[in-house]
Amino acid sequence: MPKQDRSRATRQRLLAAAVACLAEHGWAGSTVAVVAERAGVSRGAAQHHFPTREDLFTAAVEYVAEERSTALRALFPEGAQDDRRAVVAALVDLYTGPLFRAALHLWVAASNEEQLRPRVTELEARVGRETHRIAVELLGADESRPGVRETVQGLLDMARGLGLANLLTDDGQRRERVVGQWAALLAQTLD
Amino acid sequence: MPKQDRSRATRQRLLAAAVACLAEHGWAGSTVAVVAERAGVSRGAAQHHFPTREDLFTAAVEYVAEERSTALRALFPEGAQDDRRAVVAALVDLYTGPLFRAALHLWVAASNEEQLRPRVTELEARVGRETHRIAVELLGADESRPGVRETVQGLLDMARGLGLANLLTDDGQRRERVVGQWAALLAQTLD
Repeated sequence: MPKQDRSRATRQRLLAAAVACLAEHGWAGSTVAVVAERAGVSRGAAQHHFPTREDLFTAAVEYVAEERSTALRALFPEGAQDDRRAVVAALVDLYTGPLFRAALHLWVAASNEEQLRPRVTELEARVGRETHRIAVELLGADESRPGVRETVQGLLDMARGLGLANLLTDDGQRRERVVGQWAALLAQTLD
Repeated sequence: MPKQDRSRATRQRLLAAAVACLAEHGWAGSTVAVVAERAGVSRGAAQHHFPTREDLFTAAVEYVAEERSTALRALFPEGAQDDRRAVVAALVDLYTGPLFRAALHLWVAASNEEQLRPRVTELEARVGRETHRIAVELLGADESRPGVRETVQGLLDMARGLGLANLLTDDGQRRERVVGQWAALLAQTLD
């Protein structure tokens, strides 16, 4: 591989390892050294890519969030023409996997750590805006109509809450029923 | 004060201090010793009431959750006869204060700590059922009708998600608009 590609591959291995590490061990158990070992990368190489612990973990959450956004758009190439309930379910799925778990650890740690807080606040705002944009697009929501913007926002808040409910136990069955019902309620506002 | 009352007052001081400590410093910064000092109670007395760290913090979250439930019922003595939007706003408020912050820290810590996990899972299920019961009661929701149960559940999931969105920044203005819109959507199902 050319040097530039190798460097890029190393970076991506570190980012993926960082998200997995956060999801499994939380912020307290997540250091650059642990992630470097998990990724099979030297500590020095890891620090070359990410000088600080904060750099590594915020970049990791952002990278995986972008990957998921791209995958979500690809799932519904026709947007609103697709099954709206399936779109709602896919939006909710953003909040039930290892990425959400990792982001949640970072989020909660940021609430008590001054070094982390501004970085994570800014990251969350950016990821939140992008998720809102995708939701509006895939649902075919016309935000110029009254109440539509708030309805989509509430849906994403609900998705986040469902992710939290899934943290300690598998909440899949209940979640499916809630998603079905709120997809129907949503249709009343969007159509 | 009689001995029994003194003991009870000590216990309550410890519980209140434990919730404040969790909310401010997270699980990693919350030990029995730190809480005892904050409450002005000897370490030995604290351990008499709560033999383990897990005992103290799960009891604290449960105690404050019960206090809040009682306060919420008292706010709306007439239940569904009251303003439904105000009921939704009060339910959402359950998830934006220091109690939610404390519970969230405990919740996230439990996802990585085997000692804590079963205790918190059981506690969350109990508090969740009680909150659902109160919501049904205050909203005057008839759960024998199709979709009503899932509508109320989704509302509480949204409330939890709004709490998370409020963790790092004051999200009050956006929250108020979302609450208004979702209260209107809710009315379509409940009436």
